[in-house]
Amino acid sequence: MTTNKIGLLGCTALFGALLAIGSPARANDELLKLEKDPNQWVMPTGNYANQRYSTLNQITAANAGKLHPVWTFSTGVLRGHEGGPLVIGDTMYVHTPFPNNVFALDLNDNGKVLWKYEPRQDPNVIPVMCCDTVNRGVAYGDNKIILNQADAKVVALDAKTGKELWSVQNGDAAKGETMTAAPMIVKDKVIVGISGGEFGVQGRLTAYNLKDGSLAWKAYSVGPDKELLIDPVKTTSMGKPIGENSSVSTWQGDQWKTGGGSTWGWYSYDPALNLIYYGTGNPSTWNPVQRPGDNKWSMTIFARDADTGVAKWVFQMTPHDEWDYDGVNEMILADIDVKGKPTKALVHFDRNGFEYTLNRETGELLLAEKYDPAVNWASKIDMTTGRPEVVAQFSTQHNGEDKNSRNICPAALGSKDEQPAAFSPKTGLFYVPTNHVCMDYEPFKVSYTAGQPYVGATLAMFPPKGDNNLGNFIAYDAGQGKIIWSDPEPFSVWSGALATAGDIVAYGTLEGYLKIVDAKSGKELYKFKTPSGIIGNINTYTHGGKQYLAVYSGVGGWAGIGMAAGLSKDNDGLGAVGAYKSLSNYTQLGGVMTVFGLE
Amino acid sequence: MTTNKIGLLGCTALFGALLAIGSPARANDELLKLEKDPNQWVMPTGNYANQRYSTLNQITAANAGKLHPVWTFSTGVLRGHEGGPLVIGDTMYVHTPFPNNVFALDLNDNGKVLWKYEPRQDPNVIPVMCCDTVNRGVAYGDNKIILNQADAKVVALDAKTGKELWSVQNGDAAKGETMTAAPMIVKDKVIVGISGGEFGVQGRLTAYNLKDGSLAWKAYSVGPDKELLIDPVKTTSMGKPIGENSSVSTWQGDQWKTGGGSTWGWYSYDPALNLIYYGTGNPSTWNPVQRPGDNKWSMTIFARDADTGVAKWVFQMTPHDEWDYDGVNEMILADIDVKGKPTKALVHFDRNGFEYTLNRETGELLLAEKYDPAVNWASKIDMTTGRPEVVAQFSTQHNGEDKNSRNICPAALGSKDEQPAAFSPKTGLFYVPTNHVCMDYEPFKVSYTAGQPYVGATLAMFPPKGDNNLGNFIAYDAGQGKIIWSDPEPFSVWSGALATAGDIVAYGTLEGYLKIVDAKSGKELYKFKTPSGIIGNINTYTHGGKQYLAVYSGVGGWAGIGMAAGLSKDNDGLGAVGAYKSLSNYTQLGGVMTVFGLE
Repeated sequence: MTTNKIGLLGCTALFGALLAIGSPARANDELLKLEKDPNQWVMPTGNYANQRYSTLNQITAANAGKLHPVWTFSTGVLRGHEGGPLVIGDTMYVHTPFPNNVFALDLNDNGKVLWKYEPRQDPNVIPVMCCDTVNRGVAYGDNKIILNQADAKVVALDAKTGKELWSVQNGDAAKGETMTAAPMIVKDKVIVGISGGEFGVQGRLTAYNLKDGSLAWKAYSVGPDKELLIDPVKTTSMGKPIGENSSVSTWQGDQWKTGGGSTWGWYSYDPALNLIYYGTGNPSTWNPVQRPGDNKWSMTIFARDADTGVAKWVFQMTPHDEWDYDGVNEMILADIDVKGKPTKALVHFDRNGFEYTLNRETGELLLAEKYDPAVNWASKIDMTTGRPEVVAQFSTQHNGEDKNSRNICPAALGSKDEQPAAFSPKTGLFYVPTNHVCMDYEPFKVSYTAGQPYVGATLAMFPPKGDNNLGNFIAYDAGQGKIIWSDPEPFSVWSGALATAGDIVAYGTLEGYLKIVDAKSGKELYKFKTPSGIIGNINTYTHGGKQYLAVYSGVGGWAGIGMAAGLSKDNDGLGAVGAYKSLSNYTQLGGVMTVFGLE
Repeated sequence: MTTNKIGLLGCTALFGALLAIGSPARANDELLKLEKDPNQWVMPTGNYANQRYSTLNQITAANAGKLHPVWTFSTGVLRGHEGGPLVIGDTMYVHTPFPNNVFALDLNDNGKVLWKYEPRQDPNVIPVMCCDTVNRGVAYGDNKIILNQADAKVVALDAKTGKELWSVQNGDAAKGETMTAAPMIVKDKVIVGISGGEFGVQGRLTAYNLKDGSLAWKAYSVGPDKELLIDPVKTTSMGKPIGENSSVSTWQGDQWKTGGGSTWGWYSYDPALNLIYYGTGNPSTWNPVQRPGDNKWSMTIFARDADTGVAKWVFQMTPHDEWDYDGVNEMILADIDVKGKPTKALVHFDRNGFEYTLNRETGELLLAEKYDPAVNWASKIDMTTGRPEVVAQFSTQHNGEDKNSRNICPAALGSKDEQPAAFSPKTGLFYVPTNHVCMDYEPFKVSYTAGQPYVGATLAMFPPKGDNNLGNFIAYDAGQGKIIWSDPEPFSVWSGALATAGDIVAYGTLEGYLKIVDAKSGKELYKFKTPSGIIGNINTYTHGGKQYLAVYSGVGGWAGIGMAAGLSKDNDGLGAVGAYKSLSNYTQLGGVMTVFGLE
């Protein structure tokens, strides 16, 4: 504990010094240092590698059973609370779903409010948010807090005062362009995405200058090469030059203009390679019959140069999507042995139920395995082409419009959705919150109207036959493609995971339990019923030399949309959320941040 | 602990047996037994005497510092959470403010929802609720849960299933008649009051038959004797027969018809005397110049026969109210020494800042003392007449219409409002959550329109000069009329108190702290920052042989109305709540039930 105390004090002093410099050009240096400081939690993803791992080891498998809540903070907002708080110095930054309030809380005084930011947004944005009014967190850099509002406005706040420094409009909510993802600050740029795959947006990743919000670069997911920031020769796919018009040529006519490929997941960054990694979402509409072709580069992992935005490589997981298997899930950067070889790996648990291990420098596909045995839509991934071998019975394209394809696994919300996994360099394992859900899917013809849902499919979700559990929390070896252990859960595990050097792993459940399990065995060490279902991500930090965990409760998100939007009461047969209807027998809405410690 | 375990099991068996009998005529016998069982918390007031005292003694002054939250439950509703949960057998009954949802939670499974009742009410009732959308709890009797809805509907639910058994309309929300008080079940009757003193309601207490909701009796606060259920000869005031037309003769013309005297506080019952005790609220309007006379029987303690409703005695605290000093605060029935004499006392901490000790059999006034030194509107209570000696400087009648009477103490919300005190027979002390607030008050002429506010005064509230604290939590000797100790609090203490045989006292703060203090010294033994400000009341019970405390968070009520109704953001100078504006620097809205234990 003495060591930690010294560590914290040292860090705080360092932090102060860095703040004093206060130059945007140094934001990267500052964040590179802060992301390695386990006493703070400086970015929603824990670190640039998206590992959600902490070297803190005061809370261990031996003493986790003695954890208790030490203070709490209601956010004053109902509906789904995704993401988690940042901790920088003595301040915790808490955010909420729409209306996207931000609170700076004083860790020295049980969360007294130092400042609050309460944006005024047009509530008409709510109906164009597909999957609850969630927001996955704010970013910190250069003494600024960056907030992505639901209405697609990006706002920079003074981290000390909450004063608005600049704002920029990153999309048009009237067209269904909204923001739910957390921004990431890389060097002197703010990286943001866009949501709206169910409204036919043209997805893109955008970099704004941290200093003043001016545009640095914008890279679309679908469309002409120029808009994609793709170099036909230098950008590769499966190790080969991507060629000209790689996207437009895979769409019928100008369907790419409303083609989706939204970018609402998590972003990673490798400082050594200077590459940003992220995935793109579904092609619009959900009706595959209506949009022939591979629909590139929807459902794709992008590796882009952080300075220019130009793509170094791409990898499409699900060409011509027929199931809404968005490719936006996080890329975890980890140096691991893959089939025995030390590798600079990128590990991605895709919505389609396959875990992909790639060489993150080259984009080479090294391994692709199912991480839920229920997955049935494809038999395997062809390692030469990278394409899934689709099972005709579960192909909604093959079965056709207005035909109900039954018992497809996973369901549209995937074997995993945005809920981020963690990686422990100590155990070498990935800890993955998963869904264990199947669906019936019926595509139908739909036409595009700006700002109106452009979905084109109905679906019903349910657990795999012969099983009552809708989720598992698993430990996975991404170098071997193997599940090591699996803890079944009655509902999808919709919270992010945290792994620590104390050999514990933490996650939350939709019923509201914070659970701590043994990193090696998955054995439950502690659970606590928080006020509401957990779809937030757990962080850890120290204050006064003591280690704490912090997590949001607040049921909602896609899995909880029935409750969050008040649908459950009246709609017995609501297909897309029917499987989660019984959730209200366990928990109710309500946003609360709970801090746990060994006190 | 062994003793407690046996106690619990014995009780559960007994409870089952009583339920099996299930006859309304036995409800009184059942409740008389259950109210004495410390393992359960069968009525919002703890017991019929309104003492909020428990003989449980596992949690003590010695170990209270080891308390921790053990589970929590978000209610899914924002705004002010007054009242508290009931615990009967293995079930906890949790209620919410408007829309007045009720949850039966399984204590064997961390609060899994056994059933929920979600009434549909017209939201137009919200604007006619003067002081937030609060509700102070449900009642239990004869296997029924009785709920008073905001829209003045009384509903009986099956305690096992939540099925609606009967309902009755107890008022007309279109006229400003609403319900916020908890019902009390006495024998085979449900006793309910009415809110609406700011809308010119004619206040009354009503008894419905528990079996089917049919009317048993109805007793108005103001009006003709027949409506008041007063016997001119047998009903006494200050020991003398009340005489004919005691109410109507104290009003100008038919002003009594819109005269107020609402009944939204707590009710007590003395089984030996078969008397129900309660107080009546302000005369309407708040402008005293407009309504000459004593305005009887507003601001009055009533003792009524439980079977017939006929008044045995009355005592008016504040004749011709000029400050909105509602007389609804709870009557605590306690057998104590008053000035050395063993007495069947009724102890009442009035909004007007005086504590009244009466003989509860006769209504004789034994003692009346200020329980906040700041009180200045009256120099003392005349013990012969029972009338306050009003200080002209602070008389808003004397100063007149459209004149601002300044620095009156207490403010309209009183030295105490509905937040109930506790009494420990062990220490002989009363533990009182108090306000320490003064006001400027300016009456103005107003005319009555049904369903429209009928207030007729503006006011501004602030702490007494030279003081920054808006509240105190005090220990008081009601037999001597003396404050024993006083713990200052930055805001009004708006939660109810709990005292136990472990010599601890519990209360909550508007910032959100649950606090445990030593019953003898007031020394703080434990505090925990719950998710939101506490205006609920703390209860205690055992489960599995272990003692727990339960309390709602959820800031709001009159003190928190600025936050609850979203006024604070825009109204810097909002007089009636201005003193509490900084509350949002400590806490946000959100209803959460937290259970604490020694685990």
